[in-house]
Order: sequence, then C-alpha cells, then structure tokens
Amino acid sequence: MSSLPGSREPLLRVAVTGGTHGNEMCGVYLARYWLQNPGELQRPSFSAMPVLANPAATAACCRYLDRDLNRTCTLTFLDSTATPDDPYEVKRARELNQLLGPKGTGQAFDFTLDLHNTTANTGVCLISESNISFNLHLCHYLQRQNPGMPCRLFQYEPAGTETFSVESISKNGICLEMGPQPQGVLRADLFSRMRALVASILDFIELFNQGMDLPAFEMDIYRNLGSVDFPRTADGDLAGTVHPQLQDHDFEPLRPGEPIFKLFSGEDVLYEGDSIVYPVFINEAAYYEKHVAFLKSEKIRVSVPALLRLTPRSTQTL
Amino acid sequence: MSSLPGSREPLLRVAVTGGTHGNEMCGVYLARYWLQNPGELQRPSFSAMPVLANPAATAACCRYLDRDLNRTCTLTFLDSTATPDDPYEVKRARELNQLLGPKGTGQAFDFTLDLHNTTANTGVCLISESNISFNLHLCHYLQRQNPGMPCRLFQYEPAGTETFSVESISKNGICLEMGPQPQGVLRADLFSRMRALVASILDFIELFNQGMDLPAFEMDIYRNLGSVDFPRTADGDLAGTVHPQLQDHDFEPLRPGEPIFKLFSGEDVLYEGDSIVYPVFINEAAYYEKHVAFLKSEKIRVSVPALLRLTPRSTQTL
Repeated sequence: MSSLPGSREPLLRVAVTGGTHGNEMCGVYLARYWLQNPGELQRPSFSAMPVLANPAATAACCRYLDRDLNRTCTLTFLDSTATPDDPYEVKRARELNQLLGPKGTGQAFDFTLDLHNTTANTGVCLISESNISFNLHLCHYLQRQNPGMPCRLFQYEPAGTETFSVESISKNGICLEMGPQPQGVLRADLFSRMRALVASILDFIELFNQGMDLPAFEMDIYRNLGSVDFPRTADGDLAGTVHPQLQDHDFEPLRPGEPIFKLFSGEDVLYEGDSIVYPVFINEAAYYEKHVAFLKSEKIRVSVPALLRLTPRSTQTL
Repeated sequence: MSSLPGSREPLLRVAVTGGTHGNEMCGVYLARYWLQNPGELQRPSFSAMPVLANPAATAACCRYLDRDLNRTCTLTFLDSTATPDDPYEVKRARELNQLLGPKGTGQAFDFTLDLHNTTANTGVCLISESNISFNLHLCHYLQRQNPGMPCRLFQYEPAGTETFSVESISKNGICLEMGPQPQGVLRADLFSRMRALVASILDFIELFNQGMDLPAFEMDIYRNLGSVDFPRTADGDLAGTVHPQLQDHDFEPLRPGEPIFKLFSGEDVLYEGDSIVYPVFINEAAYYEKHVAFLKSEKIRVSVPALLRLTPRSTQTL
C-alpha cells in the first residue's frame, strides 16, 4: 500500500468493499444493500462506491472458491498474463484492479474500506498494513465518537515484500473487522454497528476533505508479532484447542506461564514467551487451514503528528 | 426410527457418531479422539463404537459435499440400486447402513448417539424423532446429573413419512446438540462439556442395562411446530435478519406482537401468531439455505411411564 502524498489532498475516489470473504456476512449484506441504495454512501465532497468483492464466494457462502482473494492482490498476480486456467480469485483480483487500481499508479482509488467479520472476539478492530497518519487519525476519530466501545488498531505488515490485500489496490485503505460472528450468520447487532461505523468513517473522510484541523495525539496500537499454531499430533491433526482461559480474550495481555491450549488428553500447554503479548484472532475459523490458532501482538504507544490544514482547492484556483 | 421393544432389553450395540456434519467440530474431534483412544466409551456391559460419520465433509471442513447426510438415511436411498454417479452422501449413508443397520431390521444397532453443534444459542439439547420413554428417561437423567445446566428435549418428527437422520439407521437413537459454536471452530468449553455428557449418557445406558429402576415422572419437552423463513426481497435475497430481541433467545417464549426480524430498511417485523411459541435454532448458519430463520416449538408437559426393572438375563438362563 502506498502512502498518502505529503501534501494533504482530498480523498475523492473512495470504495467500500464487502464480501471479500464470501461467508463474512455483515460486509456481504451491506454491499448488497448499498448497491441497491447507494445514498447512504454519499457525502458532499464524494460518493463512496460499494463493491461486492467476491461474488462467486458470496453466492456459495464460503470464504473463497480457489484461493484467498485477500492474499491475492499482489502485483505479481495482477500483472501476470491471464490464462483460462487461472484460479477464480486471481481473475477477480484483476477485475478489482481494473475497477480500483491499477495498483501502484496515480489512477488508483484514493481509499478503500474493506469490511470483514471474524469468529474471534475482537470487537471492533481496524487493520492497517502500515501506520500512516491518516489511518491512525481515522481510528482516533472512531474512538472519540464511540467512547464506550473499544476500537483497536491492529498493524499487520505483510511478511513478504508485497502487499496482498484487496484494499492495497488503492492508494490507501483500511480493513474494518468485527467479531465474534459465525461464518454464514448475519447478526443484526453487528450489522447495525458496522453500518454505523462505516457512516462515521465516511464522515471522517468528509471532514478531512473539508480541511478540518487534525491535531497531534498519542495512542496505543497493536503490532503483529507472528502466529502461533495449534498443538498437533505426529499426523498433523489437532491435539487440542485454544484454552478456555485464552478463548474470547482477544487484545488482553497474555503473560509467560499462562495457559494457551487444552490438549484432548487433558493437559494444559503454557505460553513460553519471555514477555507479555496481546493475542488477536483467537480461534478464528478461517485460520485453522493457515495453521494459526492466534496472532501475537505487542501493544505500543505511538505519537501521531498533526495533519496540516488542507489548503482549499478553491482558494488555490482563484 | 423404530421403537424399543416393549420388553426391556439391554442396549449392547451402541454407536457414537460425530462429524455427520463435517464443520461441527466437537463431534468431529471427539470421534477422531475416540477412534485412537476407545477406552472412554467402554462400560461393563458394552463398548460404544465411535464413528466419524462423514469423513469427506470433515476433511473439507464443510457440512456436506453433495447433500446433507443427516437428511439422506431414508430407506428410499438406502435400498436403492447403487450407481457410480450417486452423491457422496448417498454412498456414505449406505456404508453407515452396513455398519449400523440395516435400518429397520433386527440386525441394526440398538442405539446411536449422534453429536452436533449449532451456531444458535441452544445450550445443551437432545433431539429425538419420537417421544419414546427411553429417550425421555435419558434426558431426565442428564437433567438430574447437571442441576445447573438446562438440558432440553426437542421433539422433531420428520414432516414426510420417512425418517432420514443418521441415528434413524439404528433401532433407537438421539442427537446431542450443543451451541453456540461457529462452524469450523472447536471451543474447549463446549468440547469438554460434550465429552462429559457423552460419558453420562453411556453411564445411563449402563444403569439401564443393569436393570436400574426408572420410576415415572413428568417433564417439559419442546415439540417442533415448523419453520419460519427470513424476510426476503422479490429476488429471494435476504431483506433483513433475526431481530436483536430474538437473537440468542432459543427456548424462551415468543409472544404475539414481539419482534422477530429487523429489516435492512430499519423496520421491525413482528410475530403474528396467536399464541406463545418457543423458537429454537435461531439464526443457525446451515439453515439459511433451507430457508429457515428459526423453528417454532410448543412447550408441552408429558407424563413419562416407569421403565420396568429388567429381568436379568443371567437369571433367565439359569
């Protein structure tokens, strides 16, 4: 994902994508609803475009057909020569690149908000591939708008050299993650909350476009440190699952010596690290196949610089 | 499902099936564990046989490959001539019929306990296709063993003329359902509880086989009255989802005029029946495709007759 330019340009081409994973139902049904009723996504300075990111997986109510779309939007895939045998999600990533990109170019959309659900008890979480100031100001805005609701920023930098998420096609973007919600289930409470949060995010972009002052502040963010797999048998099958003391405790401190797994034999597996970490995506259904029982993160305090007042374009052109 | 014979015969051939739906993880991992460690299923008078009911769906972590195995165990399917193009689950149902049946014959297993999970907040629930005394005594036993834990009996009589569940292959059987658990997720708390309940059920069968007195009693059961679909658009897509006031309230009374759905447009849909019903399987992921938002049930009080003391076989043969 490329950084915003140093000069504070308004974000005029904005997309809201749902159904990147076809069984994460809040985004699926919000995208479908907005495609019929786009008025909710309009603001004075821009109209966000709703996109159903993975229509085939959505129709089948599964995460993906051939491979995870949200790991497929690399330049390697997007720029490779198309063949009829390409996996469905590679074809679809190229279509999204036509619609929201081309990735890495000046023609790309200014901002993509990608909507996700998890079976983990994350509450509301923003996932950002980098800690650029705009995304931190956006998270800070949501926190101030919803004082009773934790809203964490999880910084997930791809391990390789290439970004791969759907929002990485545009110049900047962020993922809005909400849990817990089972795959294939649409809960009205989460649906309403996600809808309200998207409205707040668009309001923030509008205020940004209008040139609102965004003063400096400090905030805690959670930075990914890597994953922990389930305990396994010699055959590679599960030998146990997430310990009841860890289950549902996303973003809470895990101390060395505390239990992380309960083996089917009855024994506990303890966390053997040498410092406190903050587990996230604990027992997410889609991560079993990725050999991820949870991600470890560190909580760090970051100083976020002010975003300078936008020089009104109208003034410049007068 | 055929009734137990009037004379109280011991249940010596008992099966415990998991993974009938391949993404309901408690039964999947209990069956796998017991296949390696069968000792837990042994009692003095019998050894229950663990069965992984749908291995292909379990490997793919989906409910089924071609059709719902738990709707496929009809005599029509089981007795039809096999062809190479038969759906996977039809082939698998015939294999289970070889293992646990043949259905409707004296050679069939005496009892099958089939293990399931739901995304609905059902807690612990036994599903019985009929209200034969043995199953009611079994439920009553679990209730007395676990005074703090609701354990409901849901009577689900197939709408057609044929029984179709996996446990219907054997002479008698029951389904142990536990929720909420997302599809594809194994929660340690539910896993442990299901394991303990299976142990109690086998203990009850052992006591029954030993000839324990089972006096008459009264209990409430929930009898299926039919299903309610989601509100839909003209295209058949969802127009809303389960109302927050109904979500997670399985087995609680729903009164005429109370909300059951929240439309995406913001309006509430109210329950228009003329009497109290008890919704069950509220917002179960697997039922979206079946056009079922929840099942309605009635709570009825039943008088369960005593099961007469077993005449010991050893006495008869002396």
